[in-house]
Amino acid sequence: MKKFNILLFDGFETLDAFGPVEIIGRLKEEYKLNYYSRHGGIVTSTQGVAVATQKAEAIEAGGILLVPGGMGTRQLVCDNEFIAMLKILGEESEFVLTVCTGSALLAKTGLLKDVKATSNKRAFGWAASVDEEVNWQAKARWVEDGKYFTSSGISAGMDMALGFVARFHGEDTADKICFEIEYIWNKDKNYDPFRAGQ
Amino acid sequence: MKKFNILLFDGFETLDAFGPVEIIGRLKEEYKLNYYSRHGGIVTSTQGVAVATQKAEAIEAGGILLVPGGMGTRQLVCDNEFIAMLKILGEESEFVLTVCTGSALLAKTGLLKDVKATSNKRAFGWAASVDEEVNWQAKARWVEDGKYFTSSGISAGMDMALGFVARFHGEDTADKICFEIEYIWNKDKNYDPFRAGQ
Repeated sequence: MKKFNILLFDGFETLDAFGPVEIIGRLKEEYKLNYYSRHGGIVTSTQGVAVATQKAEAIEAGGILLVPGGMGTRQLVCDNEFIAMLKILGEESEFVLTVCTGSALLAKTGLLKDVKATSNKRAFGWAASVDEEVNWQAKARWVEDGKYFTSSGISAGMDMALGFVARFHGEDTADKICFEIEYIWNKDKNYDPFRAGQ
Repeated sequence: MKKFNILLFDGFETLDAFGPVEIIGRLKEEYKLNYYSRHGGIVTSTQGVAVATQKAEAIEAGGILLVPGGMGTRQLVCDNEFIAMLKILGEESEFVLTVCTGSALLAKTGLLKDVKATSNKRAFGWAASVDEEVNWQAKARWVEDGKYFTSSGISAGMDMALGFVARFHGEDTADKICFEIEYIWNKDKNYDPFRAGQ
């Protein structure tokens, strides 16, 4: 079983985390989902969901890391200790998935330099300003580049998670999950009706 | 501010609860979101999300109640104490929203007799068998009948929550939320590509 590690923080956006969790959590034989935060204990989303977490230092190398966005990222991007921790986690993880402004956190580590990536379309300028050497994609539902999967805002994380499933377990498996959760998947990662600058 | 009360239980389905939470939580001036379970404390979704909750006895009359589905419903539908509690909560709430097999729990209380309602399409026969006097709708993304909003499986709860917003705050408000969360809303509650019997 692969470890699928979700890194939460106060002010994370609820669906950024729990949309992908719903999808990856369907592959019960493949992934063990674990919930972490920097200090462990309860962290609370912007929508008031209080989630019990383990300390991030317990995350083992070689897993998959999911980083949501949300208003909490605005402070965290300036928190050198958090960013240093995230850099190590990003380096040690086999794959890193970010949703919405979670991309800004990952960009701040420097790991996305010259990597194609996207972010929330309403906060795109801010995310892009965090590191202008990222190969930012203004029009993309989600972007895959090497070990990094980055998505547009909030609900786009679900489409990205299905893209992750399709890449490693086949599109039939992703379609089966859509059937199970009655989700109409936007399969085309280049279809982005919310693209920046429109 | 209206109270928007989410009733959780062990084995709830993550997105059933947190899809609608993402949407209703956007109306910060209108709704206060509260998380409850029968006994309070930590309850855990099927996907391992451990959520801190208050005791359901603290729910005030006159709010809006959201009941998710999930594997936990299979036991709860036979739990007379839980169903008796849910019946009182349903009677005292101004509106009741159920997602997926949450409809089966509400049906078991008897409150849906002669009410139009729907449920998960892969568990439809089971949900319908809980109370055959419900006016079950086999083809519907979601159903509105009086104070009851019931949705199809899992991700359909998001479309229903947007329908709830459209009804009471206008379609423009629902569209604004979709823009904010980059969600492609399936607005037509009768469009149901996952309908039972297909």
